[in-house]
Amino acid sequence: MTAVIDKTLQYIETNRDRFVELLYDFLRIPSISTDASKAEAMRQAAGWVRQRLLDCDVQAEIVETPGHPVVLADTGPADGAATVLVYGHYDVQPVGDESLWDSPAFEPTLRDEVVYARGAADDKGQVLTHLLSTEAWMKTAGKLPLRLKFLIEGEEEIGSPNLGALVESHRERLACDYVVISDTAKFSTDTPAITYGTKGMVYKEIIVTGPKTDLHSGSFGGTVDNPANVLARIVAGLKDADQRVTIPGFYNDVQSISPQEQAAIDALPFDENDYLQSTGSPALSGEAGFTTLQRRWTRPTLDVNGLYGGFMGQGSSTIIPARVGAKVSMRIVPDQDPAAISEAFDRAVQALTPPGVRVEVRELATAAPYVCPIDSPGMRAAIAAVEAGFNKRPVLIREGGTLPILPLFRSVLGAESLMMGLCVPNCNMHGPNEFFALDDFFCGLRSSACFTHLLAGA
Amino acid sequence: MTAVIDKTLQYIETNRDRFVELLYDFLRIPSISTDASKAEAMRQAAGWVRQRLLDCDVQAEIVETPGHPVVLADTGPADGAATVLVYGHYDVQPVGDESLWDSPAFEPTLRDEVVYARGAADDKGQVLTHLLSTEAWMKTAGKLPLRLKFLIEGEEEIGSPNLGALVESHRERLACDYVVISDTAKFSTDTPAITYGTKGMVYKEIIVTGPKTDLHSGSFGGTVDNPANVLARIVAGLKDADQRVTIPGFYNDVQSISPQEQAAIDALPFDENDYLQSTGSPALSGEAGFTTLQRRWTRPTLDVNGLYGGFMGQGSSTIIPARVGAKVSMRIVPDQDPAAISEAFDRAVQALTPPGVRVEVRELATAAPYVCPIDSPGMRAAIAAVEAGFNKRPVLIREGGTLPILPLFRSVLGAESLMMGLCVPNCNMHGPNEFFALDDFFCGLRSSACFTHLLAGA
Repeated sequence: MTAVIDKTLQYIETNRDRFVELLYDFLRIPSISTDASKAEAMRQAAGWVRQRLLDCDVQAEIVETPGHPVVLADTGPADGAATVLVYGHYDVQPVGDESLWDSPAFEPTLRDEVVYARGAADDKGQVLTHLLSTEAWMKTAGKLPLRLKFLIEGEEEIGSPNLGALVESHRERLACDYVVISDTAKFSTDTPAITYGTKGMVYKEIIVTGPKTDLHSGSFGGTVDNPANVLARIVAGLKDADQRVTIPGFYNDVQSISPQEQAAIDALPFDENDYLQSTGSPALSGEAGFTTLQRRWTRPTLDVNGLYGGFMGQGSSTIIPARVGAKVSMRIVPDQDPAAISEAFDRAVQALTPPGVRVEVRELATAAPYVCPIDSPGMRAAIAAVEAGFNKRPVLIREGGTLPILPLFRSVLGAESLMMGLCVPNCNMHGPNEFFALDDFFCGLRSSACFTHLLAGA
Repeated sequence: MTAVIDKTLQYIETNRDRFVELLYDFLRIPSISTDASKAEAMRQAAGWVRQRLLDCDVQAEIVETPGHPVVLADTGPADGAATVLVYGHYDVQPVGDESLWDSPAFEPTLRDEVVYARGAADDKGQVLTHLLSTEAWMKTAGKLPLRLKFLIEGEEEIGSPNLGALVESHRERLACDYVVISDTAKFSTDTPAITYGTKGMVYKEIIVTGPKTDLHSGSFGGTVDNPANVLARIVAGLKDADQRVTIPGFYNDVQSISPQEQAAIDALPFDENDYLQSTGSPALSGEAGFTTLQRRWTRPTLDVNGLYGGFMGQGSSTIIPARVGAKVSMRIVPDQDPAAISEAFDRAVQALTPPGVRVEVRELATAAPYVCPIDSPGMRAAIAAVEAGFNKRPVLIREGGTLPILPLFRSVLGAESLMMGLCVPNCNMHGPNEFFALDDFFCGLRSSACFTHLLAGA
């Protein structure tokens, strides 16, 4: 067996250049799930993932959903060995302001052994490590020492609206002991990590309308509520001067952290100044009474993701805008309930709304938070595999981001998720110049191959 | 003399169809002064105005400025009769959201004897009445009974940045007893008006930056100040719950209204419900302790004209935006000083800025407020002329809009301005579906012709 894993790792080295080319191919597909004009690219990306598995003789198919399709694959029964479901996503975030990219978002570009492209880290580059480690096993050993299944979706960046129903309806086919996911980050550039908790999300859009059309701000100013002034007042009213969210009941169900967990978090080699530098902000800031890592991992947050309305061009235009909006998302923690938070948000916005405007609140996405046990055989195998792949023992961390599927895997499949994050934390996921270091790509690939070996031997 | 004015008015009737065609021609030119790509249209509009005057043998020329050119014209000395300077502008507001226009902004369209087009009322249609009444006089009498000068600029909608210097450097050439301006509105659909006061303006842009790039709102949320949340807080902080502006010293120099003026305002046939209907807002609202007309005409205001930043597209994107902005303009009243208000605004914004972001405040435009005497020979001629043109006596009103040139005409030329507004108040100036009723166009044209007659005979 040991000989087989060595050959598998050797296969990865031998195919290094070809694997990098495959990474570039994948990143060239502009699979932006929130952009309706990219439907063809979405289908192309799904087909590309399937082909990787077919190419190494793993059964794989495209399964339709009411939205973007998913790729399902299965290496088949493995003599009573464990079953692992690899979950990932082939969709990516929008490009944003193209002028801020140093190279085009969908033309992967190598600078200093780092690949720059939208989706490089989130999640194409990371998901590809599992596809290629499977190829390495299949081409080397002709089979895997455990049963591997794949569920690669195309709607993660829009809140996975159709994945819940798909997992429900395919629960037998997706049955597994563990889910493996590489869609988080290392703890720092030097320190790999396994993530055992993520925040949930409630994503809202507040739309304020007042006059039936844009009005002249001279002729009408001061006599009607200005929707933009009102929107600012509503948004500002959702947090207080201590940066606590003011929505009534918002913190009611927030779990306090155990002293053991808090001690583990406090023991991490976290450099606040490095973190500040990575953001480029002039100062860190957050909810009064908590440390930066507590705010990131264990405290719920509320952020405006976008503002729009009225005159947004160069120069000046003197209007009272008829319609303005804000995208506002909250990250929630155990045991906050997305539905309850969503309703509380709506009520709070209505309470902040004066009679001179109309306010509509839309719900764009929700997801539950997730925290899993850290002492399972799967977690032990994952820790050892990442240590083997990166040549450094990983730390256990939580994450402020959201993986909507984790609570569902637990409830429907009865499986906990092992989050092996491969990229660096400040890799510009969701921003311009997203990147993934080739070294992390190959360390991750080796970790993935070793995890199969180690869990099968556990 | 009476016979001449009758013939002049008859000429206007005879040329009705041709005058409407000329109005359409003028409105087809997309002379948006704030849009750098429209420089050619701006020049075309200036040339079009000049040609109207040349066509009736009035000397007229294009005079360059560092920005858009102005048109200057002069009918020449008139035997010691009064000199009147007609001021107007050939530039227009941006189109805004094209989808809200029932017909294209630069394809003038007649529906129910009303012309819909950007600039129909503000100010092309109104300024054209004076050009065409001059034609009527010249073609009928061969000369005017007083001296008429024209100053038609192309930067009114961007705050007339170059007009001050031009008026200063052409003070002899522009010397006059009165300025006549048709760039305001009637009091209501049924009631014409002369406007004797306007508000000034201080137009600002607040730009908030934080992280060096858009950040993932999960990975970084709660640990850095979000520029969009901060912007909302700053904007909300500029007004209190009573809708009073909170900028320190903002109201220090606000003149209180005399009991006589207040009584005159209160006596106007103002229907608050009609006014509310014209806005389409669910309710009127404004500074506590003042009536709607007081708020419109005599109280300073602060309005957000636009908000932008972060993810503004369809759907959701979970970012902390690196950069957001708000356009905020204040309308000010006598004796507020634009420079002092501008500085007070900057200080207030800085005071509202937390250390986790950087804020830049730009000044996009300023203008002083204006109120003039209502008992001059010019004002009496204007009142009688409008009564003759509209067949109803005008009321005297103030206006919430801004004409930056009025205080300058007073200080440089020593001339007060007579504001004969011809359009209805809710004619969608600055919004979609701007319009000008043909009936008002021709009533205005007759008023302009009669004003020349009446002031010459005064």
